[in-house]
Amino acid sequence: MTTTVAAYAAPAAKAPLERTTVERRAVGPHDVLIDIKFVGICHSDIHQVREGWGEAIFPMVPGHEIAGIVAEVGAGVTEHRVGDRVGVGCMVDSCRVCDNCKAGLEQYCDQVPVWTYNAVGKDGQPTYGGYSQRVVVDENYVVRIPEALGLDVAAPLLCAGITTYSPLRHWNTGPGRKVAVVGFGGLGHVAVKLAHALGAEVTVLSQSLRKQEDGLRLGADHYRATGDPATFEELAGSFDLILNTVSAPLDFAAYFKLLRTDGAMVNLGLPEEPVQIELRSLSGGRRSLSSSGIGGIAETQEMLDFCAEHGVVAEIELIRADEINDAYERVLASDVRYRFVIDTATI
Amino acid sequence: MTTTVAAYAAPAAKAPLERTTVERRAVGPHDVLIDIKFVGICHSDIHQVREGWGEAIFPMVPGHEIAGIVAEVGAGVTEHRVGDRVGVGCMVDSCRVCDNCKAGLEQYCDQVPVWTYNAVGKDGQPTYGGYSQRVVVDENYVVRIPEALGLDVAAPLLCAGITTYSPLRHWNTGPGRKVAVVGFGGLGHVAVKLAHALGAEVTVLSQSLRKQEDGLRLGADHYRATGDPATFEELAGSFDLILNTVSAPLDFAAYFKLLRTDGAMVNLGLPEEPVQIELRSLSGGRRSLSSSGIGGIAETQEMLDFCAEHGVVAEIELIRADEINDAYERVLASDVRYRFVIDTATI
Repeated sequence: MTTTVAAYAAPAAKAPLERTTVERRAVGPHDVLIDIKFVGICHSDIHQVREGWGEAIFPMVPGHEIAGIVAEVGAGVTEHRVGDRVGVGCMVDSCRVCDNCKAGLEQYCDQVPVWTYNAVGKDGQPTYGGYSQRVVVDENYVVRIPEALGLDVAAPLLCAGITTYSPLRHWNTGPGRKVAVVGFGGLGHVAVKLAHALGAEVTVLSQSLRKQEDGLRLGADHYRATGDPATFEELAGSFDLILNTVSAPLDFAAYFKLLRTDGAMVNLGLPEEPVQIELRSLSGGRRSLSSSGIGGIAETQEMLDFCAEHGVVAEIELIRADEINDAYERVLASDVRYRFVIDTATI
Repeated sequence: MTTTVAAYAAPAAKAPLERTTVERRAVGPHDVLIDIKFVGICHSDIHQVREGWGEAIFPMVPGHEIAGIVAEVGAGVTEHRVGDRVGVGCMVDSCRVCDNCKAGLEQYCDQVPVWTYNAVGKDGQPTYGGYSQRVVVDENYVVRIPEALGLDVAAPLLCAGITTYSPLRHWNTGPGRKVAVVGFGGLGHVAVKLAHALGAEVTVLSQSLRKQEDGLRLGADHYRATGDPATFEELAGSFDLILNTVSAPLDFAAYFKLLRTDGAMVNLGLPEEPVQIELRSLSGGRRSLSSSGIGGIAETQEMLDFCAEHGVVAEIELIRADEINDAYERVLASDVRYRFVIDTATI
């Protein structure tokens, strides 16, 4: 039997979000019913509500940084119990049989994963995200949130955390490695904390020095303004890895020059428009341009355990549900330190 | 005492090449004087004569695929003896003290290597390339050509060979790996031979099937036309590595879709204009776009030894020096199977 739950949804593309209800499916044998406590606001929620990435499904309940408590489990569930602290990120299912799924890279599932919202589930029904009081998710796509992490500050780790942790690990971040983080917002500030915890020398490259104090306090070794041409001269050939958390188009050639031989610039934000690349700017040192999207389920659990061990959490501004639309405007104006999290008790 | 040697040079940008003479420096204690026997015509010779990559130095003697015989050595030379079969590629010097030089990656020298032509040497004099009868080169930038390789068919290996071998090795080409080679010309046909000799499954992606028979004969397992949309549908997600030997802009998004998770598309040709990239087309599987330029000196020697062991040589059309200008036109028309090599006795 389905359950009717309160949610905040955009009724149509670009429309403000408003309170409504959605149906959650009956708890199946392998399902977990989660009482959502907190949900983060990710920039991609706004991209999708505004159809910046193409046609979307409405009404849309965004939210893929979900932290809550298990309220009920199906008869076959073995990994989670009622009362457990759990999280759900960007995926709620995938094909489970392709090479990527079998390798723990469900995010690159050949059939495309079932995204937490703005997608269609295997039951043919649209998925609705975490701006809501409850959600039903297959146990294999639910992760444990360690006791050491507050649910409110852990919620953003389900997207911002894994999106930065996975490429940091894949590109061998650790002692002796120099990492630059472009942009110091929702993703950027978590990337700095994680890269620092992994032992790398971390430089923030931000438009201005406005948030420099925070950057250094949260783990950056250096904080440089990209508005200052001296930054690009002095840091030429410096970095093994540049994590770009900015969605707006950049002068990529200028950033490529900051890479050492075999360095990689990895895009986490996804510009809505194609970008211009001068291929010759990659060739002086076998540099590469890549892109990385979230991480697999096992890696998401690994990330949460790493965060618990190293005390890494998001810096958040907790808001009420009726502040969501204002929060969207503030995200677009880069006016948030550093992630909005919705207290779902206010929905 | 300098030596005057016959050469073919472009007197000015875009001008036809004509017979002339250039001065070669006196043989210093660490220098090798080489009697050039054969020199390949590389597409980049044409780019530079026509100033496609920016302002160039004239008169220009192109040629960086040099094969010859040692005629004289300086008193301090230990690696080469008179009568040795030797080659010179794209570099004739580098700073020797930066991290890249010390790591055997002289091609990425922090000070930029001294290119074989269209550059200025450490003595402040312009460098002149191999469309010439003799050249003086520092012993450290001269490699040995094994007996098993004919000097004429070995010459193109000094650029086309190392340019393809280095990325094939860097991106772990071997048994169980699938490699695509885009373009079946001077670089492409050598890439196919090398990738096959390294044990990979090799697919040529060419505009048409015009050269299919040659491709399969020279080591390709598959030969597909990029003009046929079915190629892109059927090969989606297939390749670990795509080596792009084509300088003209491509629909990169279409090629990225041919890569497996963590696959790389590596550009060897360098388009004169910036290209448009849709970053989202990289993100479905942590794909990367990179660029690779020739290889280091030690790796060039390793490549020649590998070619000798596996019988890999270039397919060439031997021409007289007075055919150079016609050959340029034919290269631009992709009308060469597969590399022009100049018999320098005709200069």
